[in-house]
Amino acid sequence: MNFHTRKWVKPEDLNPNGTLFGGSLLKWIDEEAAIYAIIQLGSQRVVTKLISEINFVSSARQSDIIELGITATEFGRTSLTMRCEVRNKITRKSILTVERMVFVNVDEQGQPAPHGKTEITYIRDQFKD
Amino acid sequence: MNFHTRKWVKPEDLNPNGTLFGGSLLKWIDEEAAIYAIIQLGSQRVVTKLISEINFVSSARQSDIIELGITATEFGRTSLTMRCEVRNKITRKSILTVERMVFVNVDEQGQPAPHGKTEITYIRDQFKD
Amino acid sequence: MNFHTRKWVKPEDLNPNGTLFGGSLLKWIDEEAAIYAIIQLGSQRVVTKLISEINFVSSARQSDIIELGITATEFGRTSLTMRCEVRNKITRKSILTVERMVFVNVDEQGQPAPHGKTEITYIRDQFKD
Amino acid sequence: MNFHTRKWVKPEDLNPNGTLFGGSLLKWIDEEAAIYAIIQLGSQRVVTKLISEINFVSSARQSDIIELGITATEFGRTSLTMRCEVRNKITRKSILTVERMVFVNVDEQGQPAPHGKTEITYIRDQFKD
Amino acid sequence: MNFHTRKWVKPEDLNPNGTLFGGSLLKWIDEEAAIYAIIQLGSQRVVTKLISEINFVSSARQSDIIELGITATEFGRTSLTMRCEVRNKITRKSILTVERMVFVNVDEQGQPAPHGKTEITYIRDQFKD
Amino acid sequence: MNFHTRKWVKPEDLNPNGTLFGGSLLKWIDEEAAIYAIIQLGSQRVVTKLISEINFVSSARQSDIIELGITATEFGRTSLTMRCEVRNKITRKSILTVERMVFVNVDEQGQPAPHGKTEITYIRDQFKD
Repeated sequence: MNFHTRKWVKPEDLNPNGTLFGGSLLKWIDEEAAIYAIIQLGSQRVVTKLISEINFVSSARQSDIIELGITATEFGRTSLTMRCEVRNKITRKSILTVERMVFVNVDEQGQPAPHGKTEITYIRDQFKD
Repeated sequence: MNFHTRKWVKPEDLNPNGTLFGGSLLKWIDEEAAIYAIIQLGSQRVVTKLISEINFVSSARQSDIIELGITATEFGRTSLTMRCEVRNKITRKSILTVERMVFVNVDEQGQPAPHGKTEITYIRDQFKD
Repeated sequence: MNFHTRKWVKPEDLNPNGTLFGGSLLKWIDEEAAIYAIIQLGSQRVVTKLISEINFVSSARQSDIIELGITATEFGRTSLTMRCEVRNKITRKSILTVERMVFVNVDEQGQPAPHGKTEITYIRDQFKD
Repeated sequence: MNFHTRKWVKPEDLNPNGTLFGGSLLKWIDEEAAIYAIIQLGSQRVVTKLISEINFVSSARQSDIIELGITATEFGRTSLTMRCEVRNKITRKSILTVERMVFVNVDEQGQPAPHGKTEITYIRDQFKD
Repeated sequence: MNFHTRKWVKPEDLNPNGTLFGGSLLKWIDEEAAIYAIIQLGSQRVVTKLISEINFVSSARQSDIIELGITATEFGRTSLTMRCEVRNKITRKSILTVERMVFVNVDEQGQPAPHGKTEITYIRDQFKD
Repeated sequence: MNFHTRKWVKPEDLNPNGTLFGGSLLKWIDEEAAIYAIIQLGSQRVVTKLISEINFVSSARQSDIIELGITATEFGRTSLTMRCEVRNKITRKSILTVERMVFVNVDEQGQPAPHGKTEITYIRDQFKD
C-alpha cells in the first residue's frame, strides 16, 4: 500500500476531548478513496456504495502528521473494492483501518456501468522524500 | 428508531458531481452517534471503536432536508453498539444505513471502563412537529 | 416546543475566549428555522425576513451537547413566525431564546406568495430516546 | 457609519436556493460587532447579550461584494449598544440592518464590569480607496 | 494604505502550534486582493496571476484582532499590481507584507483583456471609528 | 519532485467565478510545506518565514484532481527552502508553482535555532499507484 495524502492535525479537526475527531478522519478517507477510484477507473462518475469494518486502532493528537493509504483489492465488473489505512507519518503507528470501501462506476443516469478495468495501474517512482 | 438532528443540504456539502458528499454524511453521523452515546452512557469520555456495514442506499441532493436516526442495539460492559439510519425528512426515503457503530467508554487514561448502563433511557414526548 | 437537532460543541465552534461563538449559534438556528419552515409550509422557497429579540441567556462550553427547539407561533398569509430556544441537552439550562423569526414563502420571482397553511402539522411519536 | 470588513460571496456561503445563506451573514456580523466592541471598549472580555430587529432587506448573490458597517449608539455602564448595516459594496443597496446589538463587558468571573467608556473613539483617515 | 477587513483570530484559524495558521492568512489576503481588484477595475472577471515576496514578519495569536490593507501600486494594460500588509489592529504591529500581488482582467474566454483604468479611484471618508 | 497530497476540487473550494479559489490553493500548499519541513527537519517547531514567486499557471475546475509536490532546494543553518508545484493529477498540467518557500526552525522562545540537517532524507518506494 502506498501513502499519498498527508494531513497536519489542527485545532479545527479535534473533537471536544482534544483528539482527532473521528468524523474528520472519515471525511478525509472518503475523499481519498474517491480520488483513488477516479484515477484507477479513469472515470469521474464513481459513487460510494459500501464501507465495512472501520477500526479505530489508535487516536491522533493535535500537531500529528498523518498519511492516508489506499489500495485496490478487487476489481468487479462495475465496482472497485479498496482497503484503507491511516497511520502516523513519523511513528508509522496505525490509526485507522478500513477493510472494504466499495465504489461503483455509474453512467449518466446513475446506473452501474462496466468500467473495463481489471488491475491496478502502477506509476513508477524511484524516490519519495 | 427516533430521528433528531436535521440537515439542509447546502452547496458546501456537495461532492464535485453535485450530490451530497459521502464524507460530509460520515462526519455528521459520527457526531450524532457520539452525542447519542454520551447521553445514554452519561459519560463525556466515549470514543469510536468500530463502524461496520455502511450502506449508501440512495443519494441526497442540494436543498434536500435529511434527518439522522440512531438507536442502541447492545450494551456491553464498557461499550455501546448503535444502529444508524439517515433518511430524507420529507419522502422518508432511506439514504444511508449503518449496522454497527461501537463506542467505548474510557477512563482518564483512555482505558476501557465499565459504564454501568444496560438499557436505553427513554424520554417521553407526546408530539413532534 | 420540541427539540430536534443536536450539536456537540467542538473547538471549531469556539470564540477566542473559549466559549461557544455567538455567530456559530446564530448560523445553526437560522438553518434549523429554515428547515422547520420548509417542512411546515411544504415549500422549498422560504426566505428569512426578520429576527427579533435574540437573548443570549447563558454561554455554552466545549464538549457541551446542545439542542435546538423551534415552534410556530403565528401563520400569516405568506409568512410563518417561529419562536426558538437553544438549551443544554443534559442540564436543560437555557442558552439562547429568540422571540420571533419570520420567514416568508416566495414565488419563483421572489415575491411573497400565499402558503395556504394555518396550523402546525403534528407528527406523533411515542418515544424519544 | 463606516464600513470596514468586506466579503466576496462564494459558493460555500450560499443556501440551497443559491442566494447568500442568512446564517452565514449572521455569523459575519456577530464577529464584526465583537471586533468593534473590543476596540471601542479596550477590552477582550466582551460577550453578546442581546440582538434585536434584524431585517433581511434584500438578498445577496454569488460573486457580490458586500461590506459590513457597525456604529455605537449607546454606551451603558457595562454595556455597548451598536447598530449594524450590511450593504452591497458596489450598488450601496442595503442587504441587512440590525437595530440593536448589545455587548457586555465582563470581568474574569464572567460578571458584568464597568468599561469606563462614554463615546466613540475616532481614528481619522483622509482617503479610503 | 487603508485597512478595511478585520478578522478576530479564532481557534479554527490556528496551526497546531497555537498561532495563526499561515495558510488561513494567505486565504484571507487573496480574497481581500480579489475584492480590491474587482472594485478598482470595475470588473468581476479578475484572476490572480502572480504573488511575490510574502514576508511573515511576526505571528498573531488567538483573540488578536488583525486588519488587512491593500493598495494599488501599478496599473498595467490588462493587469493591476497591489501591495498588501496585515497588521495587529490594536498594536499596529506588522504581521505580514506582500510586495506584489498581480491580478489580470480577463474576457469571457479567460484571455487577458484591457481594463481601461490608470489610477486608484478614491472614496473619501472623514472619520473611521 | 514527488507529489504526495491530493485534493478533489469541490464546490466549497471554488471562487465566485466557478474555478478553484486561489486562497484555498495557498492554504493547501502552506500546510503541505509545513508537513514537508517538519518531516525533513525532524522538528515540530517550524514557522513560515518567506514565500516568493507564486505563479498561477493555469486554473483548476470543479471535479479536477490535483496533486501537491514539494522539494527541498536549500538547507540553511536554521532554515529550509523549498520549491513547490501543484498540477492536475490526470493531465499533469501545471496549475501553480512557487519558487521559494522558506521555513525556519525555532526554539521554545520562538527564536531561530539550528536544525542540524543538510540534505533530503529519502524514503524509497518501488511502486506508486
